[in-house]
Amino acid sequence: MITTNKERLDDKIKTFSKFGAEDNGGITRFSLSEPELMARDEFTKRMTAIGAEITFDDMANMYATLSGSESGLKRIVSGSHSDSVRSGGNYDGILGVMAAMEVLETIATEKIPHRHPITAMIWTNEEGSLYPPAMMSSGVVCGKFEKEKMLQSISADGVTFGEALDKFKYKGDEKNRLSAKDYKAMVEMHIEQGPVLEAEKKDIGVVTCVIGMCNYRIRTYGESNHAGTTPMSFRQDALYAAAQLIMKLHEELDKLDPTLVYTTGEIVCKPCVHTVIPNFVDFSIDARHENPEIIKQVVKIIESLPKEIAKCRVETERAWGRDTAYFDKGLVATVKKVTDEFGYSNMYINSGAGHDAQFVSEVIPTTMIFVPSEKGYSHRPTEYTPIEQCWKGANVLLNTILSIDKE
Amino acid sequence: MITTNKERLDDKIKTFSKFGAEDNGGITRFSLSEPELMARDEFTKRMTAIGAEITFDDMANMYATLSGSESGLKRIVSGSHSDSVRSGGNYDGILGVMAAMEVLETIATEKIPHRHPITAMIWTNEEGSLYPPAMMSSGVVCGKFEKEKMLQSISADGVTFGEALDKFKYKGDEKNRLSAKDYKAMVEMHIEQGPVLEAEKKDIGVVTCVIGMCNYRIRTYGESNHAGTTPMSFRQDALYAAAQLIMKLHEELDKLDPTLVYTTGEIVCKPCVHTVIPNFVDFSIDARHENPEIIKQVVKIIESLPKEIAKCRVETERAWGRDTAYFDKGLVATVKKVTDEFGYSNMYINSGAGHDAQFVSEVIPTTMIFVPSEKGYSHRPTEYTPIEQCWKGANVLLNTILSIDKE
Repeated sequence: MITTNKERLDDKIKTFSKFGAEDNGGITRFSLSEPELMARDEFTKRMTAIGAEITFDDMANMYATLSGSESGLKRIVSGSHSDSVRSGGNYDGILGVMAAMEVLETIATEKIPHRHPITAMIWTNEEGSLYPPAMMSSGVVCGKFEKEKMLQSISADGVTFGEALDKFKYKGDEKNRLSAKDYKAMVEMHIEQGPVLEAEKKDIGVVTCVIGMCNYRIRTYGESNHAGTTPMSFRQDALYAAAQLIMKLHEELDKLDPTLVYTTGEIVCKPCVHTVIPNFVDFSIDARHENPEIIKQVVKIIESLPKEIAKCRVETERAWGRDTAYFDKGLVATVKKVTDEFGYSNMYINSGAGHDAQFVSEVIPTTMIFVPSEKGYSHRPTEYTPIEQCWKGANVLLNTILSIDKE
Repeated sequence: MITTNKERLDDKIKTFSKFGAEDNGGITRFSLSEPELMARDEFTKRMTAIGAEITFDDMANMYATLSGSESGLKRIVSGSHSDSVRSGGNYDGILGVMAAMEVLETIATEKIPHRHPITAMIWTNEEGSLYPPAMMSSGVVCGKFEKEKMLQSISADGVTFGEALDKFKYKGDEKNRLSAKDYKAMVEMHIEQGPVLEAEKKDIGVVTCVIGMCNYRIRTYGESNHAGTTPMSFRQDALYAAAQLIMKLHEELDKLDPTLVYTTGEIVCKPCVHTVIPNFVDFSIDARHENPEIIKQVVKIIESLPKEIAKCRVETERAWGRDTAYFDKGLVATVKKVTDEFGYSNMYINSGAGHDAQFVSEVIPTTMIFVPSEKGYSHRPTEYTPIEQCWKGANVLLNTILSIDKE
């Protein structure tokens, strides 16, 4: 089995960690920002150095391509994103870009024969931190989002994505976009962003899908009155009602399936004064599972919540949802086979988080490779994956691509 | 029994409702604001018209006094506050001022003989809406708050109470303050601000005390992780922990006493993002009961909450508390006797809300009279008490003062 260069990969990790570095050890590298431009320049510099051709499309997605030995063949692409959340870590997204670069560097320096053109790429604005939504540019390229709408997405500072894009050095031409016509397959390597691989002591997660989800807002309507003058029996306390609903949801949802995950992450209470009974609470619930039947049961539980609880009216509203995006069965099998051949411990895993790969999977055969996240930490400065495991991931990526190249 | 003039009282209610009026039917009349100055001027105009002497002290508390037939006797005082909360109603505080004015107007126009000087007054900044704390000036006059500290209290606009006071027309001399030396008793009439009198179909609440309370902050510390990638068994969800604590508090506190009131009015959740498990929740609990033994049991329940719940650390912190302030037994009996003599339906009641009278009760014999609040509404534009009930309250107030005058 051919391996990548661990020292070179480590050097990339150390280098890219400087772009947007904060004192806390993490980074803030918003899409189209100065630090992200530095990361793009570094990508250009290193890829140009190995003779890759650099192109960029109208959403500033970047492509570095090593030509193959046979003409007329489609490209095999790997990559991820170089932007981060506010005070994020040094691995989410960028590790997938660096692993793809490492694959190209290994192929170029080791002069590994390959038939297809092989491309390392950067997707623009995966996090959507400044300009929502997340996965914006893969969404546009894969026909999920309307480009014109995305250009109007506005940051808290009042700048639109379109304005920022117009000023960005790597805004290119629509004809350079990833497409089914020109691309054969995509493999994205990423950190797990969860604790499962570490807990199961596995080096590699063979990703089978990005799991489906549903998202609801649940609201309770009570009546505000004075905390000191209103007897308990007269009260319509919206927060007490919400607490009962949260307990009820846990009780019901915990019966469904041990791999279901659900989160009540956001709660707003009005008027939110310690001497006033709350008249309104709005909280979110986000539930995810691979099996659409389980999601249907979640929806049924949410929509069957009592219409009144603690004398407060209850309202549920579906915010959004998505179906499970299964990855290409052949590519998943290839990743599994390559990993086993390396003798790396591994397991099938699904992705609870969204990734550019899920949109790409609707256009060309696609899959993902996960490496462990220490303590499951992600979207925080302490995000960490040991270099040994990053390197194993890059090795699986390289050999998966070389295997696809033979097909 | 001598009665007050219903039409004149109604005219005052209509007139004072204009000062700070909003389109919603309520008022915003912050302390020391232009609308409050208009209310003070109206008070001055009407009290001067009946020959009352106007004085004001260093906290801008205002006093209008009709001299009595015997010299050297102490004053009997009634009054409340003329400031409001933001978008408050036309009765909270100001009704007590108008009832006191009505008492003096009745005494003056009907030439009712009285031995003691009789005073109507306005307390400055009872609500503390712009300049916290509530009951600021009665607190200073009654030795509960340090004046120098209060002068530094700062509004959201960056103006200190001291600066606003210096510009206020009715800032006077410290020697004019209410004191045990010069004042015999105080009776404050107020709306109930709760639903009990209406529900019990009573015209008058004979107030026995302002009930004691304790106030805690309860905090849960979890760990933020990705909503999609963190299995349920790995989670430390601070909001789930808080929901459990709210349920537990209800379960335990509901066993104590049916007249206990408690409120979890404020809740803060971090990071409060629908795709992230909450790592921190902070909520308030405010509990009130007349009997200090019950409050002790509440404190015991709060402080005995589990130190860990749903794998989250739990912290409880006492924010503040106050003991029950009992009103003067003799004065309470006088209010009861006068009310019964009128044949007005009545009941003993305690006050769950704080009032200037509770601080004054530590300096001179003091009591309060409550009139019903429609639907228990208060601190909102829809606050309402029918004129018939306002008038009955003023009648009880007048005859209580005349009864005290005979002692």
